[in-house]
Amino acid sequence: MNTQSRMASDTILMTPSTISFTTDYGLSDGFVAACHGTIARLAPQARIIDVTHLIPPGDIRRAAAVLAQTAPALPPAVHLAVVDPGVGTSRRPIAIATHGTASHPGGSLLVGPDNGLLIPAAESLGGIATAVHLTNREWFAAEVSATFHGRDVFAPVAARLSAGASLLAAGEVIDDLVRLPHPFVEQTPRRLIAEVLTVDRFGNVQLAATPDLLPSTALALTVETVEAARTNTFGDAPAGALILLTDSAGQLAVAVNGGSAAALLSLTPGDRVTIAY
Amino acid sequence: MNTQSRMASDTILMTPSTISFTTDYGLSDGFVAACHGTIARLAPQARIIDVTHLIPPGDIRRAAAVLAQTAPALPPAVHLAVVDPGVGTSRRPIAIATHGTASHPGGSLLVGPDNGLLIPAAESLGGIATAVHLTNREWFAAEVSATFHGRDVFAPVAARLSAGASLLAAGEVIDDLVRLPHPFVEQTPRRLIAEVLTVDRFGNVQLAATPDLLPSTALALTVETVEAARTNTFGDAPAGALILLTDSAGQLAVAVNGGSAAALLSLTPGDRVTIAY
Amino acid sequence: MNTQSRMASDTILMTPSTISFTTDYGLSDGFVAACHGTIARLAPQARIIDVTHLIPPGDIRRAAAVLAQTAPALPPAVHLAVVDPGVGTSRRPIAIATHGTASHPGGSLLVGPDNGLLIPAAESLGGIATAVHLTNREWFAAEVSATFHGRDVFAPVAARLSAGASLLAAGEVIDDLVRLPHPFVEQTPRRLIAEVLTVDRFGNVQLAATPDLLPSTALALTVETVEAARTNTFGDAPAGALILLTDSAGQLAVAVNGGSAAALLSLTPGDRVTIAY
Repeated sequence: MNTQSRMASDTILMTPSTISFTTDYGLSDGFVAACHGTIARLAPQARIIDVTHLIPPGDIRRAAAVLAQTAPALPPAVHLAVVDPGVGTSRRPIAIATHGTASHPGGSLLVGPDNGLLIPAAESLGGIATAVHLTNREWFAAEVSATFHGRDVFAPVAARLSAGASLLAAGEVIDDLVRLPHPFVEQTPRRLIAEVLTVDRFGNVQLAATPDLLPSTALALTVETVEAARTNTFGDAPAGALILLTDSAGQLAVAVNGGSAAALLSLTPGDRVTIAY
Repeated sequence: MNTQSRMASDTILMTPSTISFTTDYGLSDGFVAACHGTIARLAPQARIIDVTHLIPPGDIRRAAAVLAQTAPALPPAVHLAVVDPGVGTSRRPIAIATHGTASHPGGSLLVGPDNGLLIPAAESLGGIATAVHLTNREWFAAEVSATFHGRDVFAPVAARLSAGASLLAAGEVIDDLVRLPHPFVEQTPRRLIAEVLTVDRFGNVQLAATPDLLPSTALALTVETVEAARTNTFGDAPAGALILLTDSAGQLAVAVNGGSAAALLSLTPGDRVTIAY
Repeated sequence: MNTQSRMASDTILMTPSTISFTTDYGLSDGFVAACHGTIARLAPQARIIDVTHLIPPGDIRRAAAVLAQTAPALPPAVHLAVVDPGVGTSRRPIAIATHGTASHPGGSLLVGPDNGLLIPAAESLGGIATAVHLTNREWFAAEVSATFHGRDVFAPVAARLSAGASLLAAGEVIDDLVRLPHPFVEQTPRRLIAEVLTVDRFGNVQLAATPDLLPSTALALTVETVEAARTNTFGDAPAGALILLTDSAGQLAVAVNGGSAAALLSLTPGDRVTIAY
């Protein structure tokens, strides 16, 4: 635990001035702005990068995947993420410091509820160095509502960390974080079965599997029962053709050039996709 | 009026560098960006916090409620709000300076059309100190279009106020502002009837009533004809159960743990809800 | 070409610190944030103004129109626009420097794919001075994905240009840019036929024609077969009435006071509208 504490202190010296922000708050209400305003009051120098606020309500897995795939492209940051169906109950508010990576040697910080949301991003940013249960109420809003901890708990903590406050002053170190189940991936001879991790705006279906799980010689294959070609990009196949490619997050993805693979195959996150070759 | 003028001058010394921005412009066109750009040209130091641009077209009441509930969480600011079905007609463009509050002692400024939109926010920010009809055309764009006063009138005025210009130089002081009708709230023995003020992304139904209008002993009640429990937060009730709580804006709200109260009860803003106890 | 090169060098001295950003990435995924983060890492001082990310997937014409109509309201900027169905194929990545205008004497820069997207904006910003094929891979991400050139090619180039790097160091000067077909406009005696350029959130139908193509004496006319009045703004006609006006981008537009002309006339971009007078 000593090593972890030292890592955390190092991390704090970095005083990141970027805060990324991911929620299921939507864009029709004032919830996102209330958090932006809270951050602007406590950490006026912070730059906020909104990842997305259109996570389907309560969809922790979706938020975890989007943040994990986006965070490595950002500067060193405090990553604030709130998809929090248990707000106001006994679920713990937490912050995590990560080990560094080549592109982010000082590590990163993450703030949000203890429901598994932050862990894939922590792993994509170097792995968990220290986790803290946010028990220091002096860091929260003077009055904490029962239903809006984004504004009253998480944004204030993210702002203070962004402004240079020590993670260890935010609460008690813990090591029993809640984790999401691993998505389903299974290899059998001539078959790869993988869960749909995300579907993007274009209908591209991202799988929980990485490309190394498919033999590089498997160029002609079927996805569900549809013939598909393995290509580098959309335009390498005729319009409307089903393709399998490595997407920009390094995952296997099923796509249609100029169309929607999700619509063609009626796939949605959590479904299992069979690739035969 | 003398006192009001002095208050306004004090307010100006604050030179807020935050501009909040609320419209019904949507996010598919370039309208919001054109206003951001106009502000960036006239007040390069200003930080813009977008409240929402997804107000239903022309829905002044919705915009008024969202801004009033969000503004207190923001730093001292110029609040720019444009939902303006009367654009280009004789409806007046206005700006308002508010009295201070404990959290915003210097007061705030609001800019928008004189159609009632700004008044609930002005009240949540301390109450109206001075209102000005924006008649100083030197503050507007060189050419003012007939249909886009957000870009050509309101954003330039907000930018100049944010950069420190005096509210009193923007036009003539007025005291006959257009106001929205008060939302319906009625108490009878063992009944509270209140208008739906807003419905948020999660389907939580915010009422125009505050919690003090319900006896604290009224823990078992019906909302419309459905039994509901009074709780502090969503997770205090079983999944799917109807609950009544105090929301993060301090209003009474009807909610469903893990679901949508608006869908369950088929409620939409403006409807009247009967709570019996 | 010499003159163009000198213009381009002048342009670079301007070192714009604003980057505008237009895509079809949507707001539900992390794509926009990944580009924001890439810019924040390479050009921390840049201010990003999001024009829109809700261009329908692959709709180059829509993006071109929105950017061309919004860019003149922005400060001098690098305009980053990515609607790129040919990503990863042989379509060229390009950057353009424009001649100056009265409001933007130093000219502007545009970055995106060579598919016609940038050209209407370049024309609205003074016309093309220099165009460059982005061949300098040192400006790209260390690893360029096949499907996300917004993050790996275009955002890094926009960031470097914004930070003051020379356009001519980005690649080879070219003069054979891909162009979109001109939208359809035809005048016959007592008739103007024009293609629908855009439909905005309010259902206002913007035509490819400018108001000078209609005689100023033509005040009573029909649009398709519906009677319409020529007015300055929405509120000049009774609620529900069809009107023809000059919109905030200086184009002819068909509108309904308090309603949607697009819905009333079942019009969508690309349709041809007949105005008879």
